[in-house]
Amino acid sequence: MSEAANPAALRCPAPLDPTDRVQLGHGSGGRLSAQLVARHFLPHFDNPALAQLGDASIVRVAAGEVAISTDSFVVQPIEFPGGNIGSLAVHGTLNDVAMMGARAVCLTAGFVLEEGLSLAVLDRVIAAMAGAARDAGVPIVAGDTKVVERGKADGLYINTTGLGLIDPGFRPAPSRARPGDAILVTGQIARHGMAIMAAREGLSFESAITSDSASLAPLVDLLRTAAPDVHVLRDPTRGGVASALNEIAASSDVGIEIDEPALPVPEDVRAACEMLGLDPLYVANEGVMVVFVPEAQADDALGALRTHPLGAAAVRLGRVVAAHPRIVALRTALGSTRVVDVLPGDQLPRIC
Amino acid sequence: MSEAANPAALRCPAPLDPTDRVQLGHGSGGRLSAQLVARHFLPHFDNPALAQLGDASIVRVAAGEVAISTDSFVVQPIEFPGGNIGSLAVHGTLNDVAMMGARAVCLTAGFVLEEGLSLAVLDRVIAAMAGAARDAGVPIVAGDTKVVERGKADGLYINTTGLGLIDPGFRPAPSRARPGDAILVTGQIARHGMAIMAAREGLSFESAITSDSASLAPLVDLLRTAAPDVHVLRDPTRGGVASALNEIAASSDVGIEIDEPALPVPEDVRAACEMLGLDPLYVANEGVMVVFVPEAQADDALGALRTHPLGAAAVRLGRVVAAHPRIVALRTALGSTRVVDVLPGDQLPRIC
Repeated sequence: MSEAANPAALRCPAPLDPTDRVQLGHGSGGRLSAQLVARHFLPHFDNPALAQLGDASIVRVAAGEVAISTDSFVVQPIEFPGGNIGSLAVHGTLNDVAMMGARAVCLTAGFVLEEGLSLAVLDRVIAAMAGAARDAGVPIVAGDTKVVERGKADGLYINTTGLGLIDPGFRPAPSRARPGDAILVTGQIARHGMAIMAAREGLSFESAITSDSASLAPLVDLLRTAAPDVHVLRDPTRGGVASALNEIAASSDVGIEIDEPALPVPEDVRAACEMLGLDPLYVANEGVMVVFVPEAQADDALGALRTHPLGAAAVRLGRVVAAHPRIVALRTALGSTRVVDVLPGDQLPRIC
Repeated sequence: MSEAANPAALRCPAPLDPTDRVQLGHGSGGRLSAQLVARHFLPHFDNPALAQLGDASIVRVAAGEVAISTDSFVVQPIEFPGGNIGSLAVHGTLNDVAMMGARAVCLTAGFVLEEGLSLAVLDRVIAAMAGAARDAGVPIVAGDTKVVERGKADGLYINTTGLGLIDPGFRPAPSRARPGDAILVTGQIARHGMAIMAAREGLSFESAITSDSASLAPLVDLLRTAAPDVHVLRDPTRGGVASALNEIAASSDVGIEIDEPALPVPEDVRAACEMLGLDPLYVANEGVMVVFVPEAQADDALGALRTHPLGAAAVRLGRVVAAHPRIVALRTALGSTRVVDVLPGDQLPRIC
C-alpha cells in the first residue's frame, strides 16, 4: 500500500526518533553538547590539539609569515557526486592557503546545525571532512557547534579557517602577473558547479558529472620545485575561470588572452552547460587552478603538473599581454576575439 | 489609519528597495560581491592584511606556540541592549584566546547573510565588529561572505576565528585547578543571557538589562603581572558559571565549592531570572571570567582586577577542594549544600 493510499499515514507520519536527529539542546553548551562532540566529532577528528578541548587549541609554528584564510560553506545539496559539504569545506580552505604558496599547518571548523538534521548525514559529513584533512596531512585543531531551529539553516553550514606557513622562496600573488607569462590550467573546468546543478535540479545526464573537489596542495608542491618563479596561483571557485582571470588582470594591471579551443571542458559538462544555457567559463571549480608562470618555466611547470593524477589534464590556456590592461579577451577557434567580462550578478547560488 | 484598518496595505506592502537589501548575487563571487566588500566591509575593516584581498591574508608571527579558537555566532535577536552579533563575535573569540593566557594577534570573519537582510542592519553589525576589534587592537585580517535564500538564516550568522601568541610564562588551562586554589569571578553574572531573553521575549523590566559583552584581554593582562601563577581562566558563556565550573572540576579531577551569598547577580537580573524561572548560575555571560589562583596570589589578583572598570565588581566565589572530585557544590546562606550539576539540555537557545 502506498503512503498516499493510506490516509492515516498522511495525517500521522511515523514519529522521528529524536536521538537520530540534531536537537536544539546539542547547541546549549551542556551535557548534550558534550555528547555530540564526544560521539560524533572526536572519533573522526582525533588529534592532540583538539583533544585538549579548551577554549582554544595550541599549535607550534616557526617564526615567519603565516597565511590565514576563512571560508563559509553553504552548498546545496549537502551531499553531491564527488563529495559533500564537509570535504568541500576542507578542500576549499586548504586551496586558499595553497594559492598563497603556503604550506597548510592546521584548520578550524565551525558548524551551524539545523535542528532535525539527521545525525547519520552529519556523521557522513564529518567523516568526509576528517578524511579530506587526513589525506592532506592537516589536522583540524579547533571546532565549534551551534544549533539553530528547524527551518533556520539548510541542514548545516560549515566555516573553515586555515593557517599555513608562507614559503619565502615561493610567493605567488594575484598582483604579480606580468606580460609574457604563460597561463596554465591544471585540469578540466566547470565540473563542480555542474555537479551541484545536476544534483540540485535532479537532472540526469548520460554520465554522472562529479565534482572536482580536491586539495591542490600536491600540485603546488610540484610547482614549488619545478617552477619556483610562478607569479600567480588562483583556484577559480565562485564565478569560475572568467572571474578569477578578471580579478588577476585588475590586480596586476595587465591584459589576458585565452584561447577558446584550449579550454578543457569535459564533453558531458559541455553538454549540460548547453542544455542549461550556462557558460563553463563562469561555472565554479574546486579542484583546479590557473597558474601564471614566466614562459621560460612554463614547460617545466606543465611537465611537473602532469606527473600527478590531479594535473594529468593540465594545459596551456593563454598568456598575459601588455595590450588591453584589465581586460580578459577570448580568442575563438575562428580567430575572432570577445571580451570575457565579470559576472554582474548571480549565476549559480549556493555552489560552495 | 492603522495598517490593519487598510486592507490594501495588508494585501500589497510597499515594495522594498532591493538596493537596500542583501541579494543572492552578493554571494556570487561576481561584481555584486565585490561591491558588497568594497562598500560595506572594507570601509570599516581597513587594514593592510585585509586590503590585499587575496585568497588568504598574511600575518607575521614570532616563533612559538599559537592559540587558535573558532566560534560561530547565531544569536537572536541580532541586535540587543549592550551590543549586536558583530561585537559579540569579536568579544567571544578574543575571550577564548585570552582564556589560554595568549595575546590575540588577529581575527578572521566569515559571514552567512540571508537574502533580504537590511544593508543598514549589516552596516551596524560591521561597525560594531570593527569597533570591538579596534578597541582590542586586533585586526580582522581575512573575511568571507556567503548569501543564502530568504528564510534560510535569521538575518546573518558570523564565524570568527582568532589567533594568539601563547605566553610561555602564563599558561592557564582547565586541567590545572588544584585544591587550595581560590576561585574569583571578575564581575556580575547572568547579564548577557538575560539581556537576550528580555530582548527576544519583548520583556521590559524597570531597568533595561544590558549584555556584559566585552573583551576580557585587559583583565588577563593585569593578572599576567599581578598573579602569574593563575591556574585556570574561563569565560562562562553558554551554560553559564555552573557549566564552566563543572567542566573545570572534571578536567582537573578536583572538587569545587562555591558560596551562594558571594554570587554577584545584579538585582534586576535576579528579578528577571525569578520571573522566568531561570537559575542565574546557568545563564550565559560574555564579559566575565572565573579565575582559579593559588590562595597566596588571590588577594593580589583581586586587587589588580578591581583597578579596571571591567573588574570593579570582582569577588571571591569559592575554592577548590580535594573532597568530592568532579562535583561542584554550592553552600547556601543557611549553611546547607547542594550539588550544582551540568545542564542536561537547553536552557537558552541561540544565546551566542
